[in-house]
Amino acid sequence: MSHGKQFTLYTHKGGPNGWKVAIVLEELGLTYESIYLDFDKGEQKSPEHTKYNPNGRIPTLIDHKNNDFTLWESDAILLYLVEKYDPEHKISVTSEGDKFHQTQWLFFQSSGQGPYYGQAAWFLVYHPEKIPSAIERYMNEIFRVLGVLESVLSKQEWLVGGKPTVADLSFLPWNQSTFSRLPSYKEGYDVQKEFPAVAAWHGKLEARDSVKRIVAARDAALKNQ
Amino acid sequence: MSHGKQFTLYTHKGGPNGWKVAIVLEELGLTYESIYLDFDKGEQKSPEHTKYNPNGRIPTLIDHKNNDFTLWESDAILLYLVEKYDPEHKISVTSEGDKFHQTQWLFFQSSGQGPYYGQAAWFLVYHPEKIPSAIERYMNEIFRVLGVLESVLSKQEWLVGGKPTVADLSFLPWNQSTFSRLPSYKEGYDVQKEFPAVAAWHGKLEARDSVKRIVAARDAALKNQ
Repeated sequence: MSHGKQFTLYTHKGGPNGWKVAIVLEELGLTYESIYLDFDKGEQKSPEHTKYNPNGRIPTLIDHKNNDFTLWESDAILLYLVEKYDPEHKISVTSEGDKFHQTQWLFFQSSGQGPYYGQAAWFLVYHPEKIPSAIERYMNEIFRVLGVLESVLSKQEWLVGGKPTVADLSFLPWNQSTFSRLPSYKEGYDVQKEFPAVAAWHGKLEARDSVKRIVAARDAALKNQ
Repeated sequence: MSHGKQFTLYTHKGGPNGWKVAIVLEELGLTYESIYLDFDKGEQKSPEHTKYNPNGRIPTLIDHKNNDFTLWESDAILLYLVEKYDPEHKISVTSEGDKFHQTQWLFFQSSGQGPYYGQAAWFLVYHPEKIPSAIERYMNEIFRVLGVLESVLSKQEWLVGGKPTVADLSFLPWNQSTFSRLPSYKEGYDVQKEFPAVAAWHGKLEARDSVKRIVAARDAALKNQ
C-alpha cells in the first residue's frame, strides 16, 4: 500500500461500526489509512470492496504487516487487534475466564445493541412510512439493552476484568449516536436519570484521549462530505 | 449439580440459539442437562436465571467441571466449547488466521443472520398489526444474507478452513426454521433454485448425526409442551 501505514480501514463517515475500530486503533497507537466508502454510490457493494468483504458492509480491515490479512465484522476486528497488538493488555483482559467474558460482551454488543439500535434509527429516520408500533418496539429494545448494562454497571465499574477494555469501548459509538437522539423521541428524556451507572461509564469512555480524537475526526469527516 | 453431567444448559424449546449450543455439545460428545425455561412465565427474566445471565435471554451455559464457569451469548459459548474441549479440532480450525476468520463468521451469524431473521419472524407471526413494508424489509434481509453466503459457498465447500466447523453449524438452526417458512411467504419459493450452494451446504450439515439427534430432541420437546 502506497500510504505506508500498517492498516487500511474501509469505513464510512456516518456509521458507528467503523468508528469503533478507529477508536481501538487509536488506543493501541497503530497507524491506519481510512478509506471512506460512498454508500450513495454503492461503493461498499462494488467488486473492489467485496473482494475483501463479501458482506458488502463496513468496516473491513487489511493488515499490511501481516501479509495483508483481511478481516471484517467490527467486533471480530477488535478481538484481532487486541490479541495481536495489545501484549501489555492496555485495553484487554489477561485471564482465560475474563477473555471468554470479554468475547461474550462483544457478542452482546454485536447482536443485542447494534442491530436493535440500528432498527430504531431506521424506523425513526429512514423508513418510507411512519410506523409507531415498530418505532416503539425498537425504542423499547434500546431501553432493555440499557437496563441490562445498568444492572451490571451499578455493581461494577467496567464490564469485565475490573478495567476498561474493548468490551466497554465497543458499546460507545452506538450509545453516542443514540443518546443524542433520545430526547427528541421522548421529550425531556434523561439518560443520566434513567440509567445513572451507564451514563457514568459512558462519560468515562468519552473522556479518553482516543475517543476525543475520533470524535474530532468524525466531526471533520462529516463536515467535509 | 445433582444431575451429574458436565454442563447445565438453560435453553428454550422453540428458539434457534439454544439448539445451536446443543448441536455443538453433541458434536463434541459432552454431557449436559437442558433446562427449558418457560417464556410465558417469564422464567428467563427471573432472578434465578438473571443471576447467571443479566441479559435475561437464552442460552446460558454452566460448566461444572470448570468451577461452574458461566457464559451466555450462543456464539461466545461455541468459541468456549471448541477452545476448551475440541483439542483434535473436530469442528474447529487450527491456524491463527483461520481462527480469526472463524470468529468473523460467528459475528456475522450473530449480528447479520440471527437478528434479521428474527425480525422477519416477528413481523410475519407475532407483531400485533400487519405491516407489509416491515415484512418486506426483513425478508429482503434474509435474501441478502443468503446471497452473501452463496457468493462464498459457490467458490468453497465450507466457510473457513476447508472443513465443517462451528462457523458453519452456527447458521443451521436459523436457516432450518426460515427455510421451512419461505414457501408460505413467497408461494413456490425454492431455496435450492435461488441459492444452490447454500442449499447443498445446509443439506450436508443437516445430515450430520449430531444435527439429527438434536432435531429429534427438539421435535420431542415441542411435542411435550
